[in-house]
Amino acid sequence: MRDLITVAQASELILSSSLRATSVSLPLENAHGRILQEPIRADRPLPPFDRVMMDGIAVSRGHLLASLPTSSPTSSPIPIEATQAAGAPQMTLQNPHAAIEVMTGAPLPNNTDCVIPLEHYQLKDGHAYLSSEATLNHYQSVHPMGSDCQQDSTLLETGTLLRAPELGIAASVGATTLSVSKLPRLTILSTGDEVIPPSETPRPEQIRQSHPTVLTHLLQSHQLAEPQHLHLPDQQAALETAIKEQLHHSDFIVLTGGISKGKFDYVAPALRKLCGEPLFHGVQQRPGKPLAYWRYNNTQIFALPGNPVSVLATTARYLLPALTQYLGRPPRQCSLPLQTDIHWPSPLTGLLPSKLHDHGLLLETNFNSGDYISLRGIDGFAEASPGTHKHAKHFIFYPI
Amino acid sequence: MRDLITVAQASELILSSSLRATSVSLPLENAHGRILQEPIRADRPLPPFDRVMMDGIAVSRGHLLASLPTSSPTSSPIPIEATQAAGAPQMTLQNPHAAIEVMTGAPLPNNTDCVIPLEHYQLKDGHAYLSSEATLNHYQSVHPMGSDCQQDSTLLETGTLLRAPELGIAASVGATTLSVSKLPRLTILSTGDEVIPPSETPRPEQIRQSHPTVLTHLLQSHQLAEPQHLHLPDQQAALETAIKEQLHHSDFIVLTGGISKGKFDYVAPALRKLCGEPLFHGVQQRPGKPLAYWRYNNTQIFALPGNPVSVLATTARYLLPALTQYLGRPPRQCSLPLQTDIHWPSPLTGLLPSKLHDHGLLLETNFNSGDYISLRGIDGFAEASPGTHKHAKHFIFYPI
Repeated sequence: MRDLITVAQASELILSSSLRATSVSLPLENAHGRILQEPIRADRPLPPFDRVMMDGIAVSRGHLLASLPTSSPTSSPIPIEATQAAGAPQMTLQNPHAAIEVMTGAPLPNNTDCVIPLEHYQLKDGHAYLSSEATLNHYQSVHPMGSDCQQDSTLLETGTLLRAPELGIAASVGATTLSVSKLPRLTILSTGDEVIPPSETPRPEQIRQSHPTVLTHLLQSHQLAEPQHLHLPDQQAALETAIKEQLHHSDFIVLTGGISKGKFDYVAPALRKLCGEPLFHGVQQRPGKPLAYWRYNNTQIFALPGNPVSVLATTARYLLPALTQYLGRPPRQCSLPLQTDIHWPSPLTGLLPSKLHDHGLLLETNFNSGDYISLRGIDGFAEASPGTHKHAKHFIFYPI
Repeated sequence: MRDLITVAQASELILSSSLRATSVSLPLENAHGRILQEPIRADRPLPPFDRVMMDGIAVSRGHLLASLPTSSPTSSPIPIEATQAAGAPQMTLQNPHAAIEVMTGAPLPNNTDCVIPLEHYQLKDGHAYLSSEATLNHYQSVHPMGSDCQQDSTLLETGTLLRAPELGIAASVGATTLSVSKLPRLTILSTGDEVIPPSETPRPEQIRQSHPTVLTHLLQSHQLAEPQHLHLPDQQAALETAIKEQLHHSDFIVLTGGISKGKFDYVAPALRKLCGEPLFHGVQQRPGKPLAYWRYNNTQIFALPGNPVSVLATTARYLLPALTQYLGRPPRQCSLPLQTDIHWPSPLTGLLPSKLHDHGLLLETNFNSGDYISLRGIDGFAEASPGTHKHAKHFIFYPI
């Protein structure tokens, strides 16, 4: 372990060597999950007019208070002059002692400053008769123009993750084309002569390929990249040719397998020849100890160990944060309490498969790296130092 | 409030009247986020063969122990007979006192039962010289055939949400076509004469439409429905025609706006005429008090109040759980602790915009229903009873 760096050092080397995405314009309907590259501003004050918030009648409060008998304001009927529908041009109250019937969402009529909700009066023969619950406060049931924000104020900052509410805000100010971070060109290069496509029938010594399925769905579902995939034989020349080609075309290259010290592990020799020394090769962690990382010109290269749990653990701990930062957001991670006591027997830092259970973590300390089965239903990975940890202790959690 | 039902009653009426999705076959690459409708089983034992877990040499432990001088097992060189690569057919050890070089992922050669990792020997002139750290335990560094599961055992149950690890499992057993819940036909019928498309320039009294953007992205991103949208004028005849048409074509109809008691609120009259009495109209909640719900033949009809916060709050509390259950999963909700003290001043149950902050909830009690701005960055809604609540108290949280 002398030559291995720590998990924190590896993470720091990756994040500090990361580049930043350029921008691309997208129509609003394709922008879910993307990250804003320029602010969205209000094109009008919000609300854009004094907006009626309840169905009712709009009155001129001052005139009405002056004209109603103070002892019994409910005894005098108020004539209804007109009806102001939502979407209809703003009306004007002609008789200051009368009222205009108003609908939720309509502009408050000129010459009125108070809305009395329909629960607080009765309509009869074109007149409203106020009930004893009626109040006459200034701008009651009115959402005043500009009270949420002024014209040109920033509604969504650069770096905002666009989810449903944020896209609603964009729609409401007419931002139908958005400048967002361009997804990186990411190439998955899988290795392993024992691996065949999922649609084929394996010979006894073969297994079906699953890493590209896992990585592609994970990156697509978080809108972190639109990956392409190539499978390569365990031959150094073939690896060199493919990597060299991708160095020209990819912002990120993610290799799986072939990074240990076995006889046919040609990933490190090929990358050393093409890109020089890695920023690191080997991390004090389990799973994922052989992880290596290069930065070459504008390409970031992750060489992940080929075991399924290693692939997903190192992706959650290093690759997803790097992609998130590349796109302009702080990496996703959070601190969560353990739901049970655990013991992590390895001297290496654990990247442990974890499930979220209400407000805490359920960790798996006894897993085999060789199959995805042990990852059924997990929500991410938690980082565990060696030893025994008590219920309620907080761990850093990396979601997938 | 006498005629209003509680939030729990409304939820129960909706969920108990819900139907269940049929199934559809999808290729593996399109199945992310979908819900399994039939189990996925292992087509072979997993691992499918005794799998080498470390690069090293495979030996016959018994023969080797018998032949090595017990006082100094490291002094005798072990001849290397052959190399067993991953993906190559299983070899057979010929000389029981020799070894076969093996790679991670390869089948364990016949006549061997122990792998010595390459860190624990030195290779010289075709012979391995064991170091003092070498051990010779039965099946060490071997992942035994069938130790994860037997052939035909169920790997993923009906009802499983397919995320990246689960799709990796499906790929590994050759399940390239999956039977999943068919998404419901869902139609959003928005109302409001003040509303124009986001791409148009509003007159002073108009606003741009945002509900369909919010609902469509929310439902699509969770793979709950592939919605279509129509905007309708505030006219009862037009509403009746559109709703009647959709009752034949939609599993879910979601209306926004027009469900209060205003002069132009024609949604309830139109639905009463077409579908009879609702299961409820009006809930003891804020926002969203006018919410109404019908079940008519095989269609579930949600009439949401038209304010932005009401639309999203009632969607999170009622519509998303109904769709999730329809598709075959328990509704998503969890119990989380408050991060601060709060006071909820309304006598109605609050559906409060909430952000997740590490392991707890930050709630907004002072919001205006009229704009999506107050929903920037929220993660969902929490259900709050009236009054004061202390830090660390648990609330039920409904994610968006």
